[in-house]
Amino acid sequence: MQRIEAHASFGGVQEVWQHDSAALGCRMRFGVYLPPQARERACPVLYWLSGLTCTEQNFITKANAQSHAAAHGIIVVAPDTSPRGEAVANAEGYDLGQGAGFYVDATQAPWAAHYRMHDYVVNELPALVEARFPATVARAISGHSMGGHGALVLALRNPGRYRSVSAFSPIVAPAQVPWGEKVFTAYLGADRAAWREWDAVALIAGASERLPLLVDQGEADEFLATQLKPELLEQACFAYGHPLQLRRHAAYDHSYYFIASFIGDHIAHHARALG
Amino acid sequence: MQRIEAHASFGGVQEVWQHDSAALGCRMRFGVYLPPQARERACPVLYWLSGLTCTEQNFITKANAQSHAAAHGIIVVAPDTSPRGEAVANAEGYDLGQGAGFYVDATQAPWAAHYRMHDYVVNELPALVEARFPATVARAISGHSMGGHGALVLALRNPGRYRSVSAFSPIVAPAQVPWGEKVFTAYLGADRAAWREWDAVALIAGASERLPLLVDQGEADEFLATQLKPELLEQACFAYGHPLQLRRHAAYDHSYYFIASFIGDHIAHHARALG
Repeated sequence: MQRIEAHASFGGVQEVWQHDSAALGCRMRFGVYLPPQARERACPVLYWLSGLTCTEQNFITKANAQSHAAAHGIIVVAPDTSPRGEAVANAEGYDLGQGAGFYVDATQAPWAAHYRMHDYVVNELPALVEARFPATVARAISGHSMGGHGALVLALRNPGRYRSVSAFSPIVAPAQVPWGEKVFTAYLGADRAAWREWDAVALIAGASERLPLLVDQGEADEFLATQLKPELLEQACFAYGHPLQLRRHAAYDHSYYFIASFIGDHIAHHARALG
Repeated sequence: MQRIEAHASFGGVQEVWQHDSAALGCRMRFGVYLPPQARERACPVLYWLSGLTCTEQNFITKANAQSHAAAHGIIVVAPDTSPRGEAVANAEGYDLGQGAGFYVDATQAPWAAHYRMHDYVVNELPALVEARFPATVARAISGHSMGGHGALVLALRNPGRYRSVSAFSPIVAPAQVPWGEKVFTAYLGADRAAWREWDAVALIAGASERLPLLVDQGEADEFLATQLKPELLEQACFAYGHPLQLRRHAAYDHSYYFIASFIGDHIAHHARALG
């Protein structure tokens, strides 16, 4: 494991690390923000999952999460969005292959060899973080768009693993929208029954843990009606009595300007759960 | 004048505009953040000047100034860093030509035809902004690195034009460091006497207005000893009794992580002066 960036930020330090991932079979990078409190004691960890086309850089350079993480004493870990490298399968287009891991464990060739972002984010990365940094085992998870889908699905699939979960502009029902149909067909195969385990709306029905969901959605989001469909999550949560706070924000779009505007609320939400 | 981007941000809107500049003889872009208060009344304007290699995008996507501008009701205008386009002279390397306008009015061929960033920022851009947006004529100026030099020089050369000035990691004495020697030779010619009008340290001696200078400098800045040399500004201000608050910050580097960490202090400083 090698540190390749370190920048003082709000009294703490924003770092980028590189390591060989066993789960993914390739070299990976992730961002880690260590708040000033981490010099004195172990701190809880928020995992942030980014959207399509992103690397570990987008969130750490644009969201201004460091300001709020420093205020609350929270470590923020931001992994890349897929396995990477010449040996890793890829495809034309921004919405399949590298940069589009979708936080699933692929079962189909040629993807199954490396595309195991669920395993990486849930198991390998926290083990590394908790061994290497002054981190407690109190974990929270959040993300944006494809990463909002990832945060919801990882929390719903892994009860007890996270103390809190939130999402910005998530793809709540990938099995029902074009982005999800394309990648799930590739990564998971044509049998739609297998898709249900990776779809937040489908997972709500069988959720054994009633972890409250905090979701922020911009009403001027260019993907709202075609890819995001938060009303499907609202309906599922209502039908199964799952706690959901869905906040709709007039005028906000799908960009990091939206995330930066409300990331402080999300970090405060996670701080309450992380104690 | 054409609006090419608009994103809701902290209750206001971050826009990018494109226009044909008379001063520069080319098409230019600038960012403008309109805080929520600008829907009700005219607001004062902070001009932000970016550093080498930047466009209008760097500051608006990375500094999180919108959060503080919204809190104080300040419009923030962020121009590009040089004239642009195929008809505009350029050079190899990041530190001369496009992306490296240095906020001077060039006198030498081939640069004099377009490189008039001083005229553009001091005259043309405020006239546009004050005609097109709900802006008062209360102006402040700040910037980073090459843009920190620009902010100091534009304020010192134009008494009465700005209510306040600040800089992050400025090139305080371009006439005495490699970056400045290279571009001043190109834009202003080999006669060093002509350089003094564009060098903050040299201008302090004759400053008719005692506008206080707020300067933040990271002590882990990779350009500190070779290009920035804040001690030269400290000596000049001491010698001529010019008010200066120079804050040195241990561990911080030259990046936007540094700017984001302290931009709130700068905007509060300008808000006090802008009233």
